[in-house]
Amino acid sequence: MKKGINIGIIGFGNIGTAVVHYLRENTTLINTRAGTEIQIAKIADIDLERPRDVKVEPSLLTTDAESLINDPSIHIIIELIGGIEPARTYIESAIRNKKSVVTANKALMAECGAELLALARSNNVQLRFEASVGAGIPIIRSIQQALAANYITAIYGILNGTSNYILTAMAQEKKEFSEALADAQARGYAEPDPSFDVEGIDTAHKIAILGSLAFKQDIKFSDVHIEGITQIEHTDILYAAELGYTIKLLGLARIDDQQNVEVFTHPSLVPQDSLLAAVNGVYNGVMIEGTPVGRQLYYGEGAGKGSTASAILSDVISIARWMTTPSVATEKGVHISEEELPSIPVGYKKVKPIDELEVPYYFRFSVIDRPGTMARLSKILGDNDISIASMIQKTINPMNYATLIIVTHRANESAVRKAVNEITALDICEKPPLILRVLELT
Amino acid sequence: MKKGINIGIIGFGNIGTAVVHYLRENTTLINTRAGTEIQIAKIADIDLERPRDVKVEPSLLTTDAESLINDPSIHIIIELIGGIEPARTYIESAIRNKKSVVTANKALMAECGAELLALARSNNVQLRFEASVGAGIPIIRSIQQALAANYITAIYGILNGTSNYILTAMAQEKKEFSEALADAQARGYAEPDPSFDVEGIDTAHKIAILGSLAFKQDIKFSDVHIEGITQIEHTDILYAAELGYTIKLLGLARIDDQQNVEVFTHPSLVPQDSLLAAVNGVYNGVMIEGTPVGRQLYYGEGAGKGSTASAILSDVISIARWMTTPSVATEKGVHISEEELPSIPVGYKKVKPIDELEVPYYFRFSVIDRPGTMARLSKILGDNDISIASMIQKTINPMNYATLIIVTHRANESAVRKAVNEITALDICEKPPLILRVLELT
Repeated sequence: MKKGINIGIIGFGNIGTAVVHYLRENTTLINTRAGTEIQIAKIADIDLERPRDVKVEPSLLTTDAESLINDPSIHIIIELIGGIEPARTYIESAIRNKKSVVTANKALMAECGAELLALARSNNVQLRFEASVGAGIPIIRSIQQALAANYITAIYGILNGTSNYILTAMAQEKKEFSEALADAQARGYAEPDPSFDVEGIDTAHKIAILGSLAFKQDIKFSDVHIEGITQIEHTDILYAAELGYTIKLLGLARIDDQQNVEVFTHPSLVPQDSLLAAVNGVYNGVMIEGTPVGRQLYYGEGAGKGSTASAILSDVISIARWMTTPSVATEKGVHISEEELPSIPVGYKKVKPIDELEVPYYFRFSVIDRPGTMARLSKILGDNDISIASMIQKTINPMNYATLIIVTHRANESAVRKAVNEITALDICEKPPLILRVLELT
Repeated sequence: MKKGINIGIIGFGNIGTAVVHYLRENTTLINTRAGTEIQIAKIADIDLERPRDVKVEPSLLTTDAESLINDPSIHIIIELIGGIEPARTYIESAIRNKKSVVTANKALMAECGAELLALARSNNVQLRFEASVGAGIPIIRSIQQALAANYITAIYGILNGTSNYILTAMAQEKKEFSEALADAQARGYAEPDPSFDVEGIDTAHKIAILGSLAFKQDIKFSDVHIEGITQIEHTDILYAAELGYTIKLLGLARIDDQQNVEVFTHPSLVPQDSLLAAVNGVYNGVMIEGTPVGRQLYYGEGAGKGSTASAILSDVISIARWMTTPSVATEKGVHISEEELPSIPVGYKKVKPIDELEVPYYFRFSVIDRPGTMARLSKILGDNDISIASMIQKTINPMNYATLIIVTHRANESAVRKAVNEITALDICEKPPLILRVLELT
């Protein structure tokens, strides 16, 4: 094995092949910036036979991931298999074997990020995960470094390219959800089983990671209230547009007036003049609000081979520079890099239950079109302290049901749920109403 | 003097007071992340009498900037006076005295950045300048670190909040340039003498800095072809909108097909569906295109106290961490931080003269409205290899002059200049035509 930094890649799929491809294509650049030679020592995958876009010497390939983790000549493990196990075990073992780790694994970081980062710190190695959220968009580095002097009060955005592609196609090509999903699947933007993306799970993983970093508080995936986009109809997009909004699936983490943490994933009505409304297709966009920096947007390809490889390779360069910077141990025996700024106990309260949320709401009711319906419905809203900001009633379908769109002023989530249950119990609704939330820009 | 990192601030205006304010307001956060106590040792300004938003002990204040530079207890100088001299002399002396420097000085970094960075490197101190472009938008850090594995092929965007505020007001409030400028001045967004902003000089400073970093090639302010926005009329904004564009003042640096560097500052017709077209008011937005990362946008407040203080204080934190990380000298005797990645000789050719530019153009002609005018004009365009993509002729003014708007396909700049000179010589034009360029998104 030559002198330099040796990397082992576990998981040789699309992203793994892209990492190898760009490590070769940009090799001079990468080695110069790393200050050393970055070499691929070994690549592990369960399937070595399937065709791949890059050619590698057969001697580099193995089906035995543990042989990489136990190889003392390997300095950095790049974990690209995804999911909790065996990724977690591999990463823990690699860290215990004093290897730094680069991962794109959002599920794992959302579930066990704090524990893994602590393990890395106590073993004096690096665990980097820029690729896990927004791929090559440097949102994690920016929170950790560029915004280090800020209290971040909110971070929210479009974190899942698949669902954003679907919502964009529904809006621009006037498609229903199922058609847009089929189109996304045909183009390779959605998996055969798309539930991780369209049910909001992927977004929830990412907002748990971003919220934890932004607020320096361990937010788990299980803390995130999750709603997906499967109930959105083309008609909702039209009504939203008429009211000045675009519908986007957002991950949101923010500190409310009482210093509670809110963490949600749900489709939102986003004001059309917000930059987030202009984030279309498979792109991601993340807004950050901080003091003193104000509001910022970070935008780019949030998935895909090139963008993900960019994040992984930049993390590798950074670890290589950290490894090759001669240093003596700190007081705690740990060589700290700038990427892991110390946490401070800001002391935000616990994650707020969704019941306590207060935002404006969008309702789509399909109600019997007869006198008195509107009076009964609006009485229930009023009795629950929900006031109407705007309303559209237009479509009358052949069954004498009218579609009624209501956007409210700020209301309490549990009051909204109660009111909607009461309205549903009246037996004036054709089907359960759709409830969406409206993003307020301050 | 207590233990910790002592900073000296030269220039106690709006930004200087904001730095002191947020250093106090976010003190726990900043000290924790810096890993040490950041203390203001001394503040120098030529005017100590004028009222300021923060109170500081009189003993901290001095009119003698050199006393800070020569004070051995001060570790970091924050230079906030702007302009070339005496800022350059102060920074050079501070570096020679082994102090790190944080500056927001775009003019200086555009003129002498490479020399000052080399001086800092040879003195084993840091020179940081994130605040010089886009204030708290982490565009410089992102080029240096997050995109370290990328070849950047283009960087362009809205880099001057004043001119963007004026263009936004012209578009949204149907104002002429002079009215919008007066409005910006009344709100404090434009200086009494606005020429640095509206003539494109500020943008040119910033794009010289960004181009140098992105392409690892020293691009000086004098390399930048500069045009401002003073000739834009409200009517141009209307015509551009009709053709699907928004007019924005852009700084652009890109590598063309022949590996030449293009660096320009000029108003551009930006496609309305580009995110840049949605960057309004005093906000800045910077697009980067790189391989493998694809296209990204960085958006935020590009000026102002809070955003600029965020950049400066994050640079201070980073230097403090670098200073307090125990380390031994490298082979070259220099303690390198990740912010100064080694340059590699990419070998781009020289900065291309504007004559060789090839982009689509927008012309506004005011021509005599009589038979044959269009034939003579379009013959000259055709003879110069300029083909028309779209055209609007609408307004006929009382003097029998018609306004004629032409957007061309890609044409050569010198051919365009030649054709326009020939057309002007025909004596069919009421006044010199306006020539703008069109941003092509690939």
